[in-house]
Amino acid sequence: MSQRYLPGQPHQLPRHNQPMAGYQPEHFLLSVKDGVATVSLNRPERKNPLSFDSYAELRDFFRALPYAPDIHAVVITGEGGNFCSGGDVHEIIGPLTQLDMPGLLAFTRMTGDLVKAMRACPQPIIAAIDGVCAGAGAILAMASDLRYGTERSKTYFLFNKVGLAGCDMGACALLPRIIGQGRASELLFTGRGLGALEAERWGFYNRVCEAGTVLADAQAIAAQLVAGPTFANGITKKMLQQEWNMGVDEAIEAEAQAQAICMATNDFHRAYHAFVAKQTPVFEGD
Amino acid sequence: MSQRYLPGQPHQLPRHNQPMAGYQPEHFLLSVKDGVATVSLNRPERKNPLSFDSYAELRDFFRALPYAPDIHAVVITGEGGNFCSGGDVHEIIGPLTQLDMPGLLAFTRMTGDLVKAMRACPQPIIAAIDGVCAGAGAILAMASDLRYGTERSKTYFLFNKVGLAGCDMGACALLPRIIGQGRASELLFTGRGLGALEAERWGFYNRVCEAGTVLADAQAIAAQLVAGPTFANGITKKMLQQEWNMGVDEAIEAEAQAQAICMATNDFHRAYHAFVAKQTPVFEGD
Amino acid sequence: MSQRYLPGQPHQLPRHNQPMAGYQPEHFLLSVKDGVATVSLNRPERKNPLSFDSYAELRDFFRALPYAPDIHAVVITGEGGNFCSGGDVHEIIGPLTQLDMPGLLAFTRMTGDLVKAMRACPQPIIAAIDGVCAGAGAILAMASDLRYGTERSKTYFLFNKVGLAGCDMGACALLPRIIGQGRASELLFTGRGLGALEAERWGFYNRVCEAGTVLADAQAIAAQLVAGPTFANGITKKMLQQEWNMGVDEAIEAEAQAQAICMATNDFHRAYHAFVAKQTPVFEGD
Repeated sequence: MSQRYLPGQPHQLPRHNQPMAGYQPEHFLLSVKDGVATVSLNRPERKNPLSFDSYAELRDFFRALPYAPDIHAVVITGEGGNFCSGGDVHEIIGPLTQLDMPGLLAFTRMTGDLVKAMRACPQPIIAAIDGVCAGAGAILAMASDLRYGTERSKTYFLFNKVGLAGCDMGACALLPRIIGQGRASELLFTGRGLGALEAERWGFYNRVCEAGTVLADAQAIAAQLVAGPTFANGITKKMLQQEWNMGVDEAIEAEAQAQAICMATNDFHRAYHAFVAKQTPVFEGD
Repeated sequence: MSQRYLPGQPHQLPRHNQPMAGYQPEHFLLSVKDGVATVSLNRPERKNPLSFDSYAELRDFFRALPYAPDIHAVVITGEGGNFCSGGDVHEIIGPLTQLDMPGLLAFTRMTGDLVKAMRACPQPIIAAIDGVCAGAGAILAMASDLRYGTERSKTYFLFNKVGLAGCDMGACALLPRIIGQGRASELLFTGRGLGALEAERWGFYNRVCEAGTVLADAQAIAAQLVAGPTFANGITKKMLQQEWNMGVDEAIEAEAQAQAICMATNDFHRAYHAFVAKQTPVFEGD
Repeated sequence: MSQRYLPGQPHQLPRHNQPMAGYQPEHFLLSVKDGVATVSLNRPERKNPLSFDSYAELRDFFRALPYAPDIHAVVITGEGGNFCSGGDVHEIIGPLTQLDMPGLLAFTRMTGDLVKAMRACPQPIIAAIDGVCAGAGAILAMASDLRYGTERSKTYFLFNKVGLAGCDMGACALLPRIIGQGRASELLFTGRGLGALEAERWGFYNRVCEAGTVLADAQAIAAQLVAGPTFANGITKKMLQQEWNMGVDEAIEAEAQAQAICMATNDFHRAYHAFVAKQTPVFEGD
């Protein structure tokens, strides 16, 4: 009984090494164009809250990405002028108050597994953030590689407002490395909103865009990354993760190995031959 | 003989789970009001230097806080327009030059134990910083969770000015995570003063306040934290510490467990029922 | 055959504990004055690229620094208005495309060994950066302790432009701790240039100087460090490295030991006696 709110696996995900393009998610929108997958949360009338089902399907989607041959960057956004309002009060918080401890841990592990999958997939993830970005929405933004916001957007790590701790889905580990320990402490202890200009100043946002163009801007940088050496990009992402708590010397040895792998790729050779020929290299991701 | 400068334990600290409110420290001022303890260094004629005795009593005070049922946030400040001038030249540095190696290590461990206790207690600590904040004073500020300063305040990690290394009481670990490795290196190698506007720009200060209100501002944010879910706040603080050098996946699992604990608290249920009733939740810390 | 591009050890490096001042490098300029070594890359007609030979000689130079009694700080710069254009396309990238895997790994380990040596030597390193600072040049800047730039300087972590990953010589470990994870991710995934004002705002540059004075400014701060307690400075640098991935409590104990060592130095006593005599301490590095 205790896990009755946890959904099963979606069944329609593509098999390994099959294109993701045809996949129709039940709980969010997905479009795939020229290697860029755009994931859009789509319950705009409630500012795109998450439910048990959408958490699970997002987790399974990101878990499938290492095997998706047609996707080389991901943009995550929300419909209707908001990014995501977090876990829904009625669909998530209410049911959680009924769960026993194994059920609670099954839930927190499922949400954590979504962040693990976002950090583990080789594709860089760009969050395009407009309007409200709260709770689990703030976590989705934090767990992305780059964040583009709008002036009117606002990010709330509001877990303490609902009686919880700031340590949700990796926030006490990831947020301090993005904006610094003191600023992260303030956001996590107080739950106060982080405005866009401050978010840019602190390094949470990589760019502040117009509301009308933030999604297109995020897709444009994604397209730029897709035109790059995508295998090497995946190694960059892996090593940013892998070296998180290594010593400096161990990290340098790990990079020596990882970069030697990249030097054995065709893309490295393509770049060299293009430079010699005074041409722009055309990368193919192998 | 080598440890003759190290004081014994103060004896008057309350027993576990007894209120801290009645405690009268010998070497600093303490007031407790509505769950907020205000610790004030009180040798204003010398800009509030630390002595062997005040170090030890501060250490013991912070060590007692996990067991103090009546304190849910701490403000640390100094009397007379200055925060703290650090270890006193005559009362600490002079005697240190007479100590043998076991005595020196006993001293550096005692001061380190103060920072360990500040990071280990569940209460968030807010430093209210005016005037001089130097040496061990800069460490007390750094070891706090939030820092409110004034325009005229200035912070000096001045250890190299007295022939010592910047690695004092955790500075080479904590400071880079607050302001970044390059800026921390500059402060620790040069000992130069960090002005208030720069401190805010770098994320060392969370806010720059008026000199006349900085203490009240710090107490106000402390009161706000006390009105929140204090058990969960303590978990936030614990996990910020606990995940310091975990890998990302291990941190996410640690948070899954920690947040599941918080979901089993009454405060989480109170928040849910308040939201459903369109009321503001009243948290009780259990 | 696979390692044919890797140079042997330069033979003319001074023996341990012999002065470095007389050393004449083959592949860069070296001057030593009053304890400050200035290393200058000297192929200005091509913006100071690195070659296999200059990598190896730089590595051996920094490896010798722990034993060089006459050097207490290092300035690294480039001739002719540029810092360093990175690994030369013709002299490095072309030959790398011919190497087998053991040869590639031997190369990436050699370049990593340069960064390891820069982080392991006790002397603080100040980079004086004008003009182009690209690829391995950006790494040399990153691996320094302080960075002084000019308004016209620009830093490019451009590895992905040549088909490689951003994980080069420690960049995925070091850069996020200097400028934050989100900004480092952007630079490493896109390879875009980092302008000077942004570099200062992000904490990559410690100062933006005039082009005409950046080298002198870097040498001035180096001279200031040399006038300080140089043994203790070396401990500061060592502990910034040593505590990189320790837990907070372990870092505090490590600092208790390291600082106790410094309290047993003569420089600590000199500082005390100077303060008592109201004089400026004269440090001697022992």
